[in-house]
Amino acid sequence: MELKDFRIEKDFLGEKQIPNDAYYGVQTMRAIENFPITGYRIHPVLIKSLGMVKKSAALANMETGMLDQSLGKYIIEACDEVITGRWNDQFIVDPIQGGAGTSINMNANEVIANRALELMGEEKGNYDVISPNSHINMSQSTNDAFPTATHIAILNLMNELLDSMKTMHKAFVEKAKEFSGIIKMGRTHLQDAVPILLGQEFEAYSRVVSRDIDRISLSRRHLFEVNMGATAVGTGLNADPDYIEAVVKNLGEISGLSLKGAEHLVDATQNTDCYTEVSASLKVCMVNMSKIANDLRLMASGPRDGLYEIMLPARQPGSSIMPGKVNPVMAEVVNQVAFQVIGNDLTISAASEAGQFELNVMEPVLFFNLIQSISIMSNVFNVFTEKCIKDIKANEHHLREYVEKSVGIITALNPHIGYERAAQIAKEALTTGESVRDLCIQSGALTAEQLDKILDPYEMTQPGIAGGKYLVNNTMVK
Amino acid sequence: MELKDFRIEKDFLGEKQIPNDAYYGVQTMRAIENFPITGYRIHPVLIKSLGMVKKSAALANMETGMLDQSLGKYIIEACDEVITGRWNDQFIVDPIQGGAGTSINMNANEVIANRALELMGEEKGNYDVISPNSHINMSQSTNDAFPTATHIAILNLMNELLDSMKTMHKAFVEKAKEFSGIIKMGRTHLQDAVPILLGQEFEAYSRVVSRDIDRISLSRRHLFEVNMGATAVGTGLNADPDYIEAVVKNLGEISGLSLKGAEHLVDATQNTDCYTEVSASLKVCMVNMSKIANDLRLMASGPRDGLYEIMLPARQPGSSIMPGKVNPVMAEVVNQVAFQVIGNDLTISAASEAGQFELNVMEPVLFFNLIQSISIMSNVFNVFTEKCIKDIKANEHHLREYVEKSVGIITALNPHIGYERAAQIAKEALTTGESVRDLCIQSGALTAEQLDKILDPYEMTQPGIAGGKYLVNNTMVK
Amino acid sequence: MELKDFRIEKDFLGEKQIPNDAYYGVQTMRAIENFPITGYRIHPVLIKSLGMVKKSAALANMETGMLDQSLGKYIIEACDEVITGRWNDQFIVDPIQGGAGTSINMNANEVIANRALELMGEEKGNYDVISPNSHINMSQSTNDAFPTATHIAILNLMNELLDSMKTMHKAFVEKAKEFSGIIKMGRTHLQDAVPILLGQEFEAYSRVVSRDIDRISLSRRHLFEVNMGATAVGTGLNADPDYIEAVVKNLGEISGLSLKGAEHLVDATQNTDCYTEVSASLKVCMVNMSKIANDLRLMASGPRDGLYEIMLPARQPGSSIMPGKVNPVMAEVVNQVAFQVIGNDLTISAASEAGQFELNVMEPVLFFNLIQSISIMSNVFNVFTEKCIKDIKANEHHLREYVEKSVGIITALNPHIGYERAAQIAKEALTTGESVRDLCIQSGALTAEQLDKILDPYEMTQPGIAGGKYLVNNTMVK
Amino acid sequence: MELKDFRIEKDFLGEKQIPNDAYYGVQTMRAIENFPITGYRIHPVLIKSLGMVKKSAALANMETGMLDQSLGKYIIEACDEVITGRWNDQFIVDPIQGGAGTSINMNANEVIANRALELMGEEKGNYDVISPNSHINMSQSTNDAFPTATHIAILNLMNELLDSMKTMHKAFVEKAKEFSGIIKMGRTHLQDAVPILLGQEFEAYSRVVSRDIDRISLSRRHLFEVNMGATAVGTGLNADPDYIEAVVKNLGEISGLSLKGAEHLVDATQNTDCYTEVSASLKVCMVNMSKIANDLRLMASGPRDGLYEIMLPARQPGSSIMPGKVNPVMAEVVNQVAFQVIGNDLTISAASEAGQFELNVMEPVLFFNLIQSISIMSNVFNVFTEKCIKDIKANEHHLREYVEKSVGIITALNPHIGYERAAQIAKEALTTGESVRDLCIQSGALTAEQLDKILDPYEMTQPGIAGGKYLVNNTMVK
Repeated sequence: MELKDFRIEKDFLGEKQIPNDAYYGVQTMRAIENFPITGYRIHPVLIKSLGMVKKSAALANMETGMLDQSLGKYIIEACDEVITGRWNDQFIVDPIQGGAGTSINMNANEVIANRALELMGEEKGNYDVISPNSHINMSQSTNDAFPTATHIAILNLMNELLDSMKTMHKAFVEKAKEFSGIIKMGRTHLQDAVPILLGQEFEAYSRVVSRDIDRISLSRRHLFEVNMGATAVGTGLNADPDYIEAVVKNLGEISGLSLKGAEHLVDATQNTDCYTEVSASLKVCMVNMSKIANDLRLMASGPRDGLYEIMLPARQPGSSIMPGKVNPVMAEVVNQVAFQVIGNDLTISAASEAGQFELNVMEPVLFFNLIQSISIMSNVFNVFTEKCIKDIKANEHHLREYVEKSVGIITALNPHIGYERAAQIAKEALTTGESVRDLCIQSGALTAEQLDKILDPYEMTQPGIAGGKYLVNNTMVK
Repeated sequence: MELKDFRIEKDFLGEKQIPNDAYYGVQTMRAIENFPITGYRIHPVLIKSLGMVKKSAALANMETGMLDQSLGKYIIEACDEVITGRWNDQFIVDPIQGGAGTSINMNANEVIANRALELMGEEKGNYDVISPNSHINMSQSTNDAFPTATHIAILNLMNELLDSMKTMHKAFVEKAKEFSGIIKMGRTHLQDAVPILLGQEFEAYSRVVSRDIDRISLSRRHLFEVNMGATAVGTGLNADPDYIEAVVKNLGEISGLSLKGAEHLVDATQNTDCYTEVSASLKVCMVNMSKIANDLRLMASGPRDGLYEIMLPARQPGSSIMPGKVNPVMAEVVNQVAFQVIGNDLTISAASEAGQFELNVMEPVLFFNLIQSISIMSNVFNVFTEKCIKDIKANEHHLREYVEKSVGIITALNPHIGYERAAQIAKEALTTGESVRDLCIQSGALTAEQLDKILDPYEMTQPGIAGGKYLVNNTMVK
Repeated sequence: MELKDFRIEKDFLGEKQIPNDAYYGVQTMRAIENFPITGYRIHPVLIKSLGMVKKSAALANMETGMLDQSLGKYIIEACDEVITGRWNDQFIVDPIQGGAGTSINMNANEVIANRALELMGEEKGNYDVISPNSHINMSQSTNDAFPTATHIAILNLMNELLDSMKTMHKAFVEKAKEFSGIIKMGRTHLQDAVPILLGQEFEAYSRVVSRDIDRISLSRRHLFEVNMGATAVGTGLNADPDYIEAVVKNLGEISGLSLKGAEHLVDATQNTDCYTEVSASLKVCMVNMSKIANDLRLMASGPRDGLYEIMLPARQPGSSIMPGKVNPVMAEVVNQVAFQVIGNDLTISAASEAGQFELNVMEPVLFFNLIQSISIMSNVFNVFTEKCIKDIKANEHHLREYVEKSVGIITALNPHIGYERAAQIAKEALTTGESVRDLCIQSGALTAEQLDKILDPYEMTQPGIAGGKYLVNNTMVK
Repeated sequence: MELKDFRIEKDFLGEKQIPNDAYYGVQTMRAIENFPITGYRIHPVLIKSLGMVKKSAALANMETGMLDQSLGKYIIEACDEVITGRWNDQFIVDPIQGGAGTSINMNANEVIANRALELMGEEKGNYDVISPNSHINMSQSTNDAFPTATHIAILNLMNELLDSMKTMHKAFVEKAKEFSGIIKMGRTHLQDAVPILLGQEFEAYSRVVSRDIDRISLSRRHLFEVNMGATAVGTGLNADPDYIEAVVKNLGEISGLSLKGAEHLVDATQNTDCYTEVSASLKVCMVNMSKIANDLRLMASGPRDGLYEIMLPARQPGSSIMPGKVNPVMAEVVNQVAFQVIGNDLTISAASEAGQFELNVMEPVLFFNLIQSISIMSNVFNVFTEKCIKDIKANEHHLREYVEKSVGIITALNPHIGYERAAQIAKEALTTGESVRDLCIQSGALTAEQLDKILDPYEMTQPGIAGGKYLVNNTMVK
């Protein structure tokens, strides 16, 4: 570009050339030079939320008379455009950045200021008329505007996440019903244990997902408290009490979220437990989801040389070399998202622990990871539900065979012949390959008729002494 | 020992010599040989809880008629002794062990069986009369008895933890009151920001502790659900429905906890989210506590060459070489416990993720870490409160000086002269060493009288435009 | 788009519409539908490396006669174009994906096949002529091609990283020289300890960086071993031994890296320790860097109300509200990258632990995080060196004052008057505010002349008994 | 105890009652009161190492004339007793403690001082004669003595660890030989892939263990550098250069380790990368071991309803309820130790990151975790090798059957009929249940004779085109 393609902007550190067509300004430019870290951009939902924060503040400042209507109307218009996503390409700072988000906040302040100037027919960069700091950031600090915008972004993303989880939960519930009559061998330690219904397993999955929905939902509670009005350190310096009340009210209306002002702004500005709480609930969820994905992958192992208890739907050729191979890719990607979220939770914890005094300057990396965790969870749950859970099929015949040939069913004999005697029969069955039933009859322990009652696998899937507790003379067979 | 000092016990894998005076038996002995890992023992609270579980089960089995009163009464007596801690030295298995807790459960079963035998005048090891598996473990599996005992242990330890936190919270609240009139400079990025009250900082500490109390308290909710009656895989095989109802009722009475049976025993047996949820809340808490400890250590830095804003009580000579040195040891140990709990949380998450099908066989290491986290948190909070928080002193004069010489107070001029002009004055103040006030007067920006109102540091600690928003002609000074 | 804008491609799962102008094909399209997870793209360096792998394989297959020259020449040309980055926009799969990288590998296979078809005048999608699987992937599997490409990508990125670290090391060494004569108080526990040179501190930083360079450099060693020829599970099925030799040789030449074939291909295909080893070394480095960043931020704290021992260069206005405030943003971003890398290391460890049998299907998330860690470290070290370290200034006068008013210098009296007596004097100094020197003289412990020798702070920064060990009658003063 | 059972000791903070028979003194007593955290004791190997450090220092101080022979000889004798473990019960401080190890160091200083006093006929507590600080700690600081002792302890424990790993490695190598002729199906994604030898899998295990031995061995390198002579902050204040040389030499001789003095004592005192480096190598190892344990548990799954490819030796009854059940307990405990070590590594990293200026005050928790990780790894590898690996048996017949019925062998047809055609046959085989071989013949793709050559599973376990690359007219069958 030639020199005429630039305007000069300055701050108290000096001057910078800014491309004429850019809406961002000098401080954004410094941030670009200082922080070329990840190459990523700010999440669009966060940009939108910043627009809402700036609009709410401008309105509140107009209400208190601090901001002149003649300027405010253009600022509001510029904010509205930011909210629509029109200027997303002007938000160019890296999500990982020093400065506790000042660069993100100033990027927003500058884009809005310059667009407002343009709307009123002024030159971009003419900050004497509308200043990013004095007007757009009026009554605010990065330390309240940035986390507040992030609360809004996270709450919106969490709504999507919770929707995706509810759909996933429903899919598990439906599968549980579909599989409610299918008997299989339960396993502990990967070793044959005792019979269970495939439906019971899917009920267990649905229930843990349900608890995760509750946990994640609950973990949002402190996010509804925003620290607008805190300004620099939470004392509210330069924020008129009327403004504080108004800005939160405005923001609630604009965002459609049930926001309220934080009770104690110093507390709300320096502590980041509302984020670690959310991240912890995400991590707990993904630990559970990884276990579920592992179970599904194990059950679907084979087809010839594995458990082959269920079939996951084929979604893509599984191998570039092995013809016909189909892999459980939709479950695998759940595991991977789990590992990502677990790692992100550590980053978030480490960032949170690094807070000092009135502020946690590590918020950019904290927010980046939190937003990522929520987003990728939503995304993966949507495809996992649609492209995997809903189309799982049970290999019913194969599952039934597993039960029939198993030794673990001998557990049902404990109340009748005692653990020690049962153990001897089990050992013999495993060694000789004979069935538990035959060995019991041979040993005279129980009759065929008694065994019919005791060894009914379906009965074993419900609480009770299989065969009835008084089956054999009201006592254990000695 | 000579041969006569041993008895022979056997299980389906063969025989073992057991010391005659030992109450544990063959399976405990195998566990000792198999798992010489940490060298630690089971936590006494867990042993006590195992005694409660076994007692509750024995009573319930007597109620359903499965267990003969003539045996049951001795079993109950033996359980009562275990509950008192009398046989703690007989619980010798390592907390980290393969087998999902079977060895711990069998250690309990064997000790109780042998003690019951002894009480009824039988030889230890005479398992034909009272069997660890058939009688003590009657209607149970390790997979319900062990986690249930752990729930009880954890709930009891968490009560202690919550008590210690409430005391700590109170101490912070009291310090906040004590320091409510003490002005100091707030800091963001470790750089001088704007004035704040020391009391506001301690309020912030007290408030985050308060939220942690709520979070940890809430995280217990699923622990009150126990899976007694689940037996091996949650289907309740061999557990009479009457027994299941009775055992939970008994356990609630014996433990004094509001226990209830899990709604879905398969779910409750395979999922470990109730533990990761607790651990996550502990981690969130310790991340906060580490930040608080860091703040206190920073504020107490010096005495001559640091911030020296507060003084922590001297608890021990700080150095083996530097005479008179006193270190913030009580805060440091909080940091260290934080790091331990953060690491434990990872171990717990990894263990939880490794569950497969109907059981999580990694429960021993999970429970070991969870019990440790809760215990060390209680312990450290008790000493931190008593030996540190309560005796913190403020260096009030020094704090006041910091405010007076600072430049950050210039922020209060923004509404009056604009951010950009204020920035120029700030820069000059920092370069020349002159005071903000003097420079303002020199530059003619504001009068001495106006500055008296605007630069009152106490007013800066509350929301509002310092000096009043219409101070200068109802508008910003240009 | 209209129907005519699409071509139909099929695989064994069925047909898909592919945009006519797309070079990717049916399997890439499935991946896009299956894995809309992060929204990110594959790192350009990895795309380039995939091009190199495919070219090396094509050449090797031509050498063994498996691939016809008439096809091979177009494949080579297409690979060359991929290597230049020309088709980066055709690599559209998400870095987090199920399937162990099959989608990434097929994305490359399809782009190269279709471009080669185009170059030879054939229609895109005419896989009877050139097939992504049979020709481009010939003698390969995702399980060797994808990790091999990643090795090359990582090695190249690590070269950049090591360069950035060497520059950073040099900057610390130079600062150490610059500060070699500047005395300051050393601190332990954030409490005043004994004198040290600022240069010694920077030497310590330079030395730990030097060790990190060695560690990271060394951690690459197993990356130079590539598993080309392993095909599906490491047995080399469908890979001619001549091909295996040739492909590694070709790849070494094309990449310019000292690659060698892995000794044991089954081992190299299923184990991922070469990645966890690298990530561990990165984590160790960032733990050190975070400590250094923290030290710098502490030393630069103030300016009026902190330690203010050094000044970091001002890189951007520090606050949107506080005029003139400058924050240590370049150090803060180092902390944040540290937290990201620490979290990534956990993700990588978790992914690595999840390997099963012949393959680790979690490689996509593992590689994504490893590539990110290396990249952001390079990036942050470059700016940290240029925009921070090189321009650090010492507040020499202030540092000197700290030494002069400190009490910790009393340590030098231990060899002369004993720890216990020194401790009494220290306590008195701290209480009364008097200097150690004056108190010593008053108490008659030592003479002014003796104290001149003992209390020389510069002498205290080197090993030895300050003042000489036989200063006072060859013995300790009693 | 009555008052006469106590002696009074004092330090500069005041007086304390100490039990008459205790060898520890006032500062240990304060530590007990301040840090009742874990309830654990210091590891005996660390106590022994502290004895060595104190002895080496005493000898060196005698060599330089700083310590009088008449005192020194008793001090040496007391140190020798500590080294034998005689006074282990006097080391009562908690491993997690504030103060950077001052309490541990003082515990050692006090025990040695009091025992030396006793040996020379003086009363315990008569510190005017022999002082814990002035004599036992002479020329030292906690900041050099404590980490140096820890280096020695860790190096000794790592020798044991490396021995246990070499034995484990040998066991894997032997199993690999034993299983070298046993064919099985390789699996990727838990799905049937292509044939492999069981021996190749065990070779892969042995090789990764071998690399871990190298990594862990190498990670020790900086531990051989000790910072004796650093004293408080690494400047060597109060440490005579002759002493520094002598103490390291003495310590090398007494410990039998190739110790050397750190090149740069300031660096060596403040940086803890030598520990994070070790811990990282331990973590990398346990990630690998967890994967191996998982593989073994999967292969041993069953016996009737799992893969049942191998049998792990039965080490204990697996269930308190399921008769005859045997679980893979020795592999499970490896997983659990892995999770513990992974968590410990995080604690260690967090502690290391928290270093500030001249010291890392978090060393106690860091060392506690590092010592634990090394110890439990040694312990678990010993039992895993002896009680599991050595007695693994292959179910050869079953493994062979898996190969015969698999579809994955079709991969060998790619070079002959192309991936796409093979994929169609594979799909048909999976749908119809017919064998790949039969379908190939039916379709006329290949003759029975050709298929005999191509489908030989043993040939598939070595690199090459199964059946020869020019099998069918020197070209792919179309």
